[in-house]
Amino acid sequence: MKSFLYPIINPSSFTWVRPGNGEAAKVHEWIQPITASTDFEQKKDAEVVILGVPLSRSSISASGASEFPEAFRRSWRGFSTYNLDDDVDLSEMTALDAGDVPMHVTDIAQCHENITAASALIHQHFQNSLVCAIGGDHSITAMLVKGMNQAKPQEKIGILQFDTHFDLRDMSDNGPSNGTPMRNLIESGVVEGSNMYNIGLHGFFNTKDLKQYADEKGVNYITLRKARRRGVEETVLQCLNDLSSKVDTIYVTVDMDVLDITYAPGVPASTPGGMTTEELLEGVLAAGRHPKVKAMDIVCLDPQKDTQVQHTVKLGTHVFLTFLTGVMLRQSASR
Amino acid sequence: MKSFLYPIINPSSFTWVRPGNGEAAKVHEWIQPITASTDFEQKKDAEVVILGVPLSRSSISASGASEFPEAFRRSWRGFSTYNLDDDVDLSEMTALDAGDVPMHVTDIAQCHENITAASALIHQHFQNSLVCAIGGDHSITAMLVKGMNQAKPQEKIGILQFDTHFDLRDMSDNGPSNGTPMRNLIESGVVEGSNMYNIGLHGFFNTKDLKQYADEKGVNYITLRKARRRGVEETVLQCLNDLSSKVDTIYVTVDMDVLDITYAPGVPASTPGGMTTEELLEGVLAAGRHPKVKAMDIVCLDPQKDTQVQHTVKLGTHVFLTFLTGVMLRQSASR
Amino acid sequence: MKSFLYPIINPSSFTWVRPGNGEAAKVHEWIQPITASTDFEQKKDAEVVILGVPLSRSSISASGASEFPEAFRRSWRGFSTYNLDDDVDLSEMTALDAGDVPMHVTDIAQCHENITAASALIHQHFQNSLVCAIGGDHSITAMLVKGMNQAKPQEKIGILQFDTHFDLRDMSDNGPSNGTPMRNLIESGVVEGSNMYNIGLHGFFNTKDLKQYADEKGVNYITLRKARRRGVEETVLQCLNDLSSKVDTIYVTVDMDVLDITYAPGVPASTPGGMTTEELLEGVLAAGRHPKVKAMDIVCLDPQKDTQVQHTVKLGTHVFLTFLTGVMLRQSASR
Amino acid sequence: MKSFLYPIINPSSFTWVRPGNGEAAKVHEWIQPITASTDFEQKKDAEVVILGVPLSRSSISASGASEFPEAFRRSWRGFSTYNLDDDVDLSEMTALDAGDVPMHVTDIAQCHENITAASALIHQHFQNSLVCAIGGDHSITAMLVKGMNQAKPQEKIGILQFDTHFDLRDMSDNGPSNGTPMRNLIESGVVEGSNMYNIGLHGFFNTKDLKQYADEKGVNYITLRKARRRGVEETVLQCLNDLSSKVDTIYVTVDMDVLDITYAPGVPASTPGGMTTEELLEGVLAAGRHPKVKAMDIVCLDPQKDTQVQHTVKLGTHVFLTFLTGVMLRQSASR
Amino acid sequence: MKSFLYPIINPSSFTWVRPGNGEAAKVHEWIQPITASTDFEQKKDAEVVILGVPLSRSSISASGASEFPEAFRRSWRGFSTYNLDDDVDLSEMTALDAGDVPMHVTDIAQCHENITAASALIHQHFQNSLVCAIGGDHSITAMLVKGMNQAKPQEKIGILQFDTHFDLRDMSDNGPSNGTPMRNLIESGVVEGSNMYNIGLHGFFNTKDLKQYADEKGVNYITLRKARRRGVEETVLQCLNDLSSKVDTIYVTVDMDVLDITYAPGVPASTPGGMTTEELLEGVLAAGRHPKVKAMDIVCLDPQKDTQVQHTVKLGTHVFLTFLTGVMLRQSASR
Amino acid sequence: MKSFLYPIINPSSFTWVRPGNGEAAKVHEWIQPITASTDFEQKKDAEVVILGVPLSRSSISASGASEFPEAFRRSWRGFSTYNLDDDVDLSEMTALDAGDVPMHVTDIAQCHENITAASALIHQHFQNSLVCAIGGDHSITAMLVKGMNQAKPQEKIGILQFDTHFDLRDMSDNGPSNGTPMRNLIESGVVEGSNMYNIGLHGFFNTKDLKQYADEKGVNYITLRKARRRGVEETVLQCLNDLSSKVDTIYVTVDMDVLDITYAPGVPASTPGGMTTEELLEGVLAAGRHPKVKAMDIVCLDPQKDTQVQHTVKLGTHVFLTFLTGVMLRQSASR
Repeated sequence: MKSFLYPIINPSSFTWVRPGNGEAAKVHEWIQPITASTDFEQKKDAEVVILGVPLSRSSISASGASEFPEAFRRSWRGFSTYNLDDDVDLSEMTALDAGDVPMHVTDIAQCHENITAASALIHQHFQNSLVCAIGGDHSITAMLVKGMNQAKPQEKIGILQFDTHFDLRDMSDNGPSNGTPMRNLIESGVVEGSNMYNIGLHGFFNTKDLKQYADEKGVNYITLRKARRRGVEETVLQCLNDLSSKVDTIYVTVDMDVLDITYAPGVPASTPGGMTTEELLEGVLAAGRHPKVKAMDIVCLDPQKDTQVQHTVKLGTHVFLTFLTGVMLRQSASR
Repeated sequence: MKSFLYPIINPSSFTWVRPGNGEAAKVHEWIQPITASTDFEQKKDAEVVILGVPLSRSSISASGASEFPEAFRRSWRGFSTYNLDDDVDLSEMTALDAGDVPMHVTDIAQCHENITAASALIHQHFQNSLVCAIGGDHSITAMLVKGMNQAKPQEKIGILQFDTHFDLRDMSDNGPSNGTPMRNLIESGVVEGSNMYNIGLHGFFNTKDLKQYADEKGVNYITLRKARRRGVEETVLQCLNDLSSKVDTIYVTVDMDVLDITYAPGVPASTPGGMTTEELLEGVLAAGRHPKVKAMDIVCLDPQKDTQVQHTVKLGTHVFLTFLTGVMLRQSASR
Repeated sequence: MKSFLYPIINPSSFTWVRPGNGEAAKVHEWIQPITASTDFEQKKDAEVVILGVPLSRSSISASGASEFPEAFRRSWRGFSTYNLDDDVDLSEMTALDAGDVPMHVTDIAQCHENITAASALIHQHFQNSLVCAIGGDHSITAMLVKGMNQAKPQEKIGILQFDTHFDLRDMSDNGPSNGTPMRNLIESGVVEGSNMYNIGLHGFFNTKDLKQYADEKGVNYITLRKARRRGVEETVLQCLNDLSSKVDTIYVTVDMDVLDITYAPGVPASTPGGMTTEELLEGVLAAGRHPKVKAMDIVCLDPQKDTQVQHTVKLGTHVFLTFLTGVMLRQSASR
Repeated sequence: MKSFLYPIINPSSFTWVRPGNGEAAKVHEWIQPITASTDFEQKKDAEVVILGVPLSRSSISASGASEFPEAFRRSWRGFSTYNLDDDVDLSEMTALDAGDVPMHVTDIAQCHENITAASALIHQHFQNSLVCAIGGDHSITAMLVKGMNQAKPQEKIGILQFDTHFDLRDMSDNGPSNGTPMRNLIESGVVEGSNMYNIGLHGFFNTKDLKQYADEKGVNYITLRKARRRGVEETVLQCLNDLSSKVDTIYVTVDMDVLDITYAPGVPASTPGGMTTEELLEGVLAAGRHPKVKAMDIVCLDPQKDTQVQHTVKLGTHVFLTFLTGVMLRQSASR
Repeated sequence: MKSFLYPIINPSSFTWVRPGNGEAAKVHEWIQPITASTDFEQKKDAEVVILGVPLSRSSISASGASEFPEAFRRSWRGFSTYNLDDDVDLSEMTALDAGDVPMHVTDIAQCHENITAASALIHQHFQNSLVCAIGGDHSITAMLVKGMNQAKPQEKIGILQFDTHFDLRDMSDNGPSNGTPMRNLIESGVVEGSNMYNIGLHGFFNTKDLKQYADEKGVNYITLRKARRRGVEETVLQCLNDLSSKVDTIYVTVDMDVLDITYAPGVPASTPGGMTTEELLEGVLAAGRHPKVKAMDIVCLDPQKDTQVQHTVKLGTHVFLTFLTGVMLRQSASR
Repeated sequence: MKSFLYPIINPSSFTWVRPGNGEAAKVHEWIQPITASTDFEQKKDAEVVILGVPLSRSSISASGASEFPEAFRRSWRGFSTYNLDDDVDLSEMTALDAGDVPMHVTDIAQCHENITAASALIHQHFQNSLVCAIGGDHSITAMLVKGMNQAKPQEKIGILQFDTHFDLRDMSDNGPSNGTPMRNLIESGVVEGSNMYNIGLHGFFNTKDLKQYADEKGVNYITLRKARRRGVEETVLQCLNDLSSKVDTIYVTVDMDVLDITYAPGVPASTPGGMTTEELLEGVLAAGRHPKVKAMDIVCLDPQKDTQVQHTVKLGTHVFLTFLTGVMLRQSASR
């Protein structure tokens, strides 16, 4: 099976059998896979487009985050489209699953080029859609943002990052690994340091020189301790408010290692002292509501290290759905 | 070994060897199993009667919650009878373990009838006791409440439910499964929708049509987000207050899936975004204190999916003991 | 999506995306799902038809064997169609996946009727196909054989059973549970005791009265110790030889609990002292080669209790593919 | 509850509820706990007496083998008393569960004295019974044999040991740990080195000096490789034959670490390259049949490190039951 | 390799290879092992000295806490020396790893004497250093404090204890086990009951008689519920304030079982209803800042029961580093 | 710390503290790490040199095999140097640990070049040593053999491969991944297909086109079924005999996935139906004895997927020590 996107994008390896009547109560019945027979012109106003990015061989530590896009799709069946907290039904939006970026086993640079190309293609075709990338490790964020920039070069991009780490490591050490995406974007001129806002840093998980680099480049960061005192939602709103006065488009990147290891056993880089589930959900809901947010990603979740009941995979999917709830509320508000 | 309860109830499969002197410092030394030689007349004023309900083949998803009554009894040894927080010693109350409702392997309707019969028998004989049923999946709640109703037909019953789900699914789809107990009670006329209070709904775990049904029937529900803002204890007190003006007896049902998957790894239906342990314990303590509360159950905890250290089983037992602490405080207050 | 089989059979919940060119190197690219657009007339000579039977609420012990049909399909991707040991490529046969028998949550008798009906339908339409049922617990075997008997009432059926247990329990105790299928077939007159051959009994896992019943009914059984001394392959050949002189059709049932608990961690009823993987594979290969073998099932494998790497699920699939290798060799031999 | 044995022995912490009619089909219905009301005179001809020895703080590596006696008793429910391989029903023998040797938390020497005293008491009262000790770590064997020697000082004792290790470490290093029992018995003069037969040594798990000590003392050992070539059963028979010409009584000690780590995941000291389940069962069956065998123990199985399905605990119980099968066959033969 | 400390202390079993240039960014590059060539005179002003205490055979329940010192050292590599929350770099302090107290396998009294001796030696030589003991089970605290008292007999010692238990059990029952350290210190006259402050008691994990003993001896305790209402940091500050007016030196003991079982899966005695990670970190940070705090220990963490990703080990190390952050802030403040 | 090998090779990240007297009873006391102060000239006749190759980002499936070199070193402590089966003490040989090949995070081609360079350097300096490479995934074998070839271009190399797969995939698809090493060596002309002997192929784990390529190139393969019939030892001897008449040097590569998934739970690519532990140990012992065998590697073992007790890591180390036993026996024979 091929689509016009091919070979830039591969179709998802499997598809859920959907109810014949078109009604959807569960997430797997709602999200539509792009297939050979998809009419792209008709679909180009889809509110949401999902792109799988199954790359984690670029991770500093051994990681199976490449398996998350598939685990993410498998988990859909466990979720209703209806969000009871906010009385919102996501199935009122059109959501497409574009499939996965093709990857090369031994040429990581090629993988990264493929991601940039796929991102550019998606952002070009789906001009007004919210693009959600499902990683994969954090190295992909630099490529996704570059692709977005290629598609819409006139738009200034800012980044809201949920992370335990700066991800500002020097690329000259080990290339564009998962420790480098923010530096990559600064050094390539795609995003200015002062247009980056990092929420969630804490503890002993960043070396001092990274902080110094962040300070030099004007990267904004709010440690978890400070965010907690102010409230995570309030912190996110203020970051978005700041960003919104400086950029055209906001990209949200959720490194799942921002969560405490208790809440995210399937994220190898998660640590003690991180965010609670409630805090992260509160943060992404607020982010989803902001009208300038146009793209997001979820990274560094390794289903192979998850518990038997797929605790962390379910949480990753919940982050995605909560973000989309914000998007729907944004749209309701604008009516 | 048989008791007068037989064959309505089976004795527990094993008994703890108890200290000869009658003193009890640990829970397994305190709770008394009903045996052939138990003098029922003398015991009929026991403050607490436990009934195991090992049924989970009525669960929509494959479940081993049928194993919880035994795991619950095994866990007693790890708990003192003395609650330090409230300076209360549960061993001042008499607690009986009536054993388990007998189950049939392939006839679920028969199992359900047995539960109703056993519940009726217990409520009849132990008129003033607090009856604690240990499930099993949530389908049993409908049967337990029906039995209670048969034993005390003159008493109007209200329900306080801790749950991530409505449990209001249509029984015509798949019979009285664990998704249906509340609807079962409404449709059978045993409890009115408006006398049901559900605390803990959240996220993407109920379809929209269930909410619509709840609204039609006047079922009261306070989402977890709202309960958190008000305080879980405060929320429970207010629900009990409302109920108390409308009914004679309050039944408390604790579906352990109300807990976040982080706190309850051994509850297959638990989800991200649920209650914390602290919130649930706070809630059941408040519930235990209310004088109209006469029965409770704990359901949907599957020991076979629990962690090696029996994390969730211990929590289930803690919920039970915390509830009883409320009961003791209620009695102290009334002296 | 519906097929002519509906509502007798449900389509599989998901489908693999298959290569456009029709070539198949992996099992998931080879086996064809039956869909609304399948031309049944054309396919009725398919060599192999798979039927999922996701029922395990009829199991004496809590079981998630209902999840095996889906786990089985998911595992296909890890297997080539080419068997190197025997230089045989399974993709030369046509294999169809008919989907799953629909199940009811609380009415086990209804589930059993559905299985019989689905089995009858499949055997009727695919007169010459090898029908492979994927359970589910062992109670399904009685229903599958009854369906086969309904479809082909003129054919006398014999059974070759790989099992640690007799499965001859009295149905009057707990109905047609997973401890009863062989007795069920004897008592219903569908298969004579003397036409049943059980290989693999051992240790302390059958009570004495079951052996007595087996002896009364003339059930043939070769304990594992005896089978080992003679050789498992040799034992199977001799059983088939005996059977073949007495019946028209042979049904092979593989209760995965015949395996030692070391080799089958995901089979709750597996025990110490059972078969090795090598012995079972040798046995099913021999069984697959016999021309009178027309149907088989694999039961009692619970993926929820399997190891993180899905050890037992992979083994279940390997048993299936090894059996089919026997079928292909049978066909090659007959050319 | 106390027995005449108290305080030398504690009753088991729990008891199974047994069928009223006295019939036993499962092991937990068959084995009788000794309680306050047990008539010891009447029971003194019991064929089998079980003694729990919950000590593992004497283990070199951290061990939870102290938990095995309880886990062993819990596992009984999963076993029939009927052995199909040998057509033998264990319930024809009387088996008593004497309870556990009391242990001190911080005084290991005291624990060891308690074991010796309990062993002496049991062997004295139950002169003709087969005494089965359930450990605990291997340090207990020295104490159990010393107690046996105290009770029957006139009987010369020989030992058949299934083990991956010599257990001949120098006691002056770290006292009577689980690495020393055989040396302890040699040095205390209770058993001569030449009356010890060790089957199962292999690989890189003994230092050279231990082998030299073994050679000096005339300890007999047959490596696993040699035992395999000759056949484990044949090897055991020959060892027993040799021993039988030299001693009055044979004690069999089964260190579960003789098993390959694949077969015994819950034995921390098990290694790659050890015995298979089949080999060990074959060995203990042969041992059980020998008329001079009067006592046995099973040691070093740590249920806390076992798999979720209690793989190794089940195997430990199977070893016990297989040994008793040998005992029954011995009795049948002698009729 | 031997050091002047030998045989009082053994060197750590392994050492990290350190960067040649002396710079340290990660914890394993910073902490210096004491070796044969260490110049003790020069190092005696080290701010921090670590002492491993690998004893857990004195634990009431089977425990592998003896393995924590090694697991602790292995985990260092995952932590930066830089604490971003407080902008503090621990590598500005000198930290030595003195190695482990030698232990005897079967003589627990000898182990305890060794701990006292090692503690005395360390406190004598490193008069001004912060001594951090890494357990082991809680029995070691009594010995460590006694050693400290021997080294500095003129200094009155007070204790701040984070714990779910009183640890005031009667030593006459089972000797100086992990249930007794506080009573041991009271009875030996080393610390007065009124100079002990316990934070974290909750639930059903202490018997009533222990509370009565605590009250008699004037032990101060703040239940977790009360500490939460006041704030854990505030509670700690107030305890230290009280203590500070009464004693010369404060010893902080962190029993990791104070944490909820959700946050500390690798602590066998952890329970539902305990502290969160955030609360404990907040507490130890406050404790580290107090100028009278001169020694601390971390006990009862069993790496063998931890999750695959070493969740609890990481948390134990985080507690240690957070405490040292307090120490550094104390020093900065005093400049 | 640097050595002359640097930057071609990095020292191991940690070193065991070794006994001062130079005596070694355990493996970690025997193997000597190469450090800055190692006298290379003096050591160049070491019988054994170990090289860690921590690369697995070149693996087709997500793999943590990069962690095996460190896990391998950690496991040494659990093994004696004395092999009781063969009465051989490995400590009579000199064994060096050269450390690990440095790896790049995102440039796999660079990693592969580093491996080749390190292999060449080691083979050049240690002309007569047995070089043992510890992977890593199977892609490294091609690089290791190429390095050996560069160091000794005049020597014709043959390969004995234990594997479930051909590893003959086309490099044009995905570069030199772990599916390609044998083809890589054939296509680069370093080893002829006819000088490759593969033992262990079985089941459904190779596509048909790979077999065809093997046949074209004259690669020799003995399926596991055939090897079993002939005996694994006998099969290995015959392969070595054949090879020995054709080449100067034999390289042995052990892909741990040749083992059945039961025996090697920590090898993600292991399958049902593979070798038993006993068979593999028998095979590598025979290989170690052959005088033309000069190098070996162990690959594809992922410690992150291993069981809690490190089952597979222990087995990997056992394979290494068994191979060295063969080497010692070879030397004894030649004296």
